[in-house]
Parts: sequence; C-alpha cells; structure tokens
Amino acid sequence: MRFLSFHVDMFNYKVTKKGRSAIIEEITEENRENLVKEALVLFMSFEKSDEIDPNLLEKSIVEIKKITNQLKISNLVIVPFAHLFGQLSSIEYAFKSFKKIESLLTLKGYSVLRLPFGWFNELEMKAKGHPLSRISRIIQ
Amino acid sequence: MRFLSFHVDMFNYKVTKKGRSAIIEEITEENRENLVKEALVLFMSFEKSDEIDPNLLEKSIVEIKKITNQLKISNLVIVPFAHLFGQLSSIEYAFKSFKKIESLLTLKGYSVLRLPFGWFNELEMKAKGHPLSRISRIIQ
Repeated sequence: MRFLSFHVDMFNYKVTKKGRSAIIEEITEENRENLVKEALVLFMSFEKSDEIDPNLLEKSIVEIKKITNQLKISNLVIVPFAHLFGQLSSIEYAFKSFKKIESLLTLKGYSVLRLPFGWFNELEMKAKGHPLSRISRIIQ
Repeated sequence: MRFLSFHVDMFNYKVTKKGRSAIIEEITEENRENLVKEALVLFMSFEKSDEIDPNLLEKSIVEIKKITNQLKISNLVIVPFAHLFGQLSSIEYAFKSFKKIESLLTLKGYSVLRLPFGWFNELEMKAKGHPLSRISRIIQ
C-alpha cells in the first residue's frame, strides 16, 4: 500500500461521474459530497504485492497512527487514488481493502471519511505548510 | 522526471518556512504567494536517471503539451514536490531543471507559475472532477 498525505485545514469533495472501473460504488445522500476540517487526507492505493500480505492493513494503520499522533488529529480522509506510480492490486482487492481499513480505523477511534470507489470527483483542499504537511509512504 | 497533475479551477499558495534543502530560493514580493485560475498544476520531481538524459526536458514538455492540448489550457503551475515515490536527482540538478523547464515552457507560450524551491508552503486548490483531471506520468 502507498499513500501521499496532506495535513489540511479543510477538504471537500463531490462525486461527478462514474469512472471506468469494474466496481462502481453506490452513491447515496451520505457519500455524494462531504466536507471535513482539520484532517489528514490520504491519497491511497493498494498494490499487487499487498494481496499476499496478511498483515498489510495492520502495518498501514501503525504508519498512519505515527503521523496522526505527531499532528494530534483524529480526522482522516481516504481518497482511492490510482496515480501514485505503483503497480495496482486487483480492483476487487482494492475495494475490499478500502472498506476494511475504513472499518479498522473507525474502531481505533478515528473519524474516517472514505470517498466512494470508482467515481471521479471534484475536490477542494486547503493544506497547511509545515514540515509534516506532506508525507508519502510505501507500506510493505 | 515524474509528475502528478491536477486540472484546477483555482490554485493558491503562500510560502511558510524554509525546508531542509541545501538550496533555498530567495523569496521576493513576486514569489511569496500567488493565485492562478484554470490551470494544470504539476507536482513534479526530477530523478537520478534524468541527470544523464540530454533530451529529458524536451520529452517532458511534449508530454505536458499533450495534456494541455486536450484540456485547452495554457496556465501551468509547477510545484517542486519530493513525495512522488521516485529516486530524486541531486538538489543542484533539480533546481537548475525547474528553472529551465519554466523558461522553456514560457517560451512555448505558457503562463507558468513556479513555486519557490526549498520552501514549505500552504496551498489551496479546487480541482475539477473529469476523467483527465488527475494524471501521473514518468518521463524517461
């Protein structure tokens, strides 16, 4: 798994149209658009090599927790994002993993906003400018 | 060279503090903060392998031009960005290349906003949500 994170004052999205993915998540009034303040925005993708790693999500959560502890925040935004230069996992594995990491992070006490899978979206964000405000990590 | 691009309605930045880079560009009233509308924002990094490629910048410009032709825009924002998972070039090569690609793109008729090298910055952007609104490319 890899992610690129931005520590933001504000993040806001709105789905626009369906992507070309084989899995397109259902859109409801709940997930069509949302706004979060004071959050860690994680542009995230799952990779081929993750599919055989039973501890991947646990390790990912440890890494996310290190950052949120330093920043002292508990709001997370998870953006499924295919443009991080990795070799992507299957769509099925990715979708399942996004839902699972959302659940696990929620159980850990985070407030998690996960963007719907398979959709294009408009987004607006206001990112802070301190030394930890952009981070990229590969978890393997 | 690699970049991650966002097609935006608006992009706005303001430098905050010096990074830990060996090269810190001078800040003036001109480059301290800026706002651009209707632009292609390129989060960009130069890589080790670029240093021995004499055609790297030309090839990069061809790739950028393909995108701006499709989007029908001529405003570019270049954000030096070390978090794209690549093996970074030397700082000296990167700084020289950012300035050179800015000049070359300006000569091609683009309006280019290049963020100052070596600084942290706050940024705000409003990204569109169509199929070409996020693109990542490795040029080599």
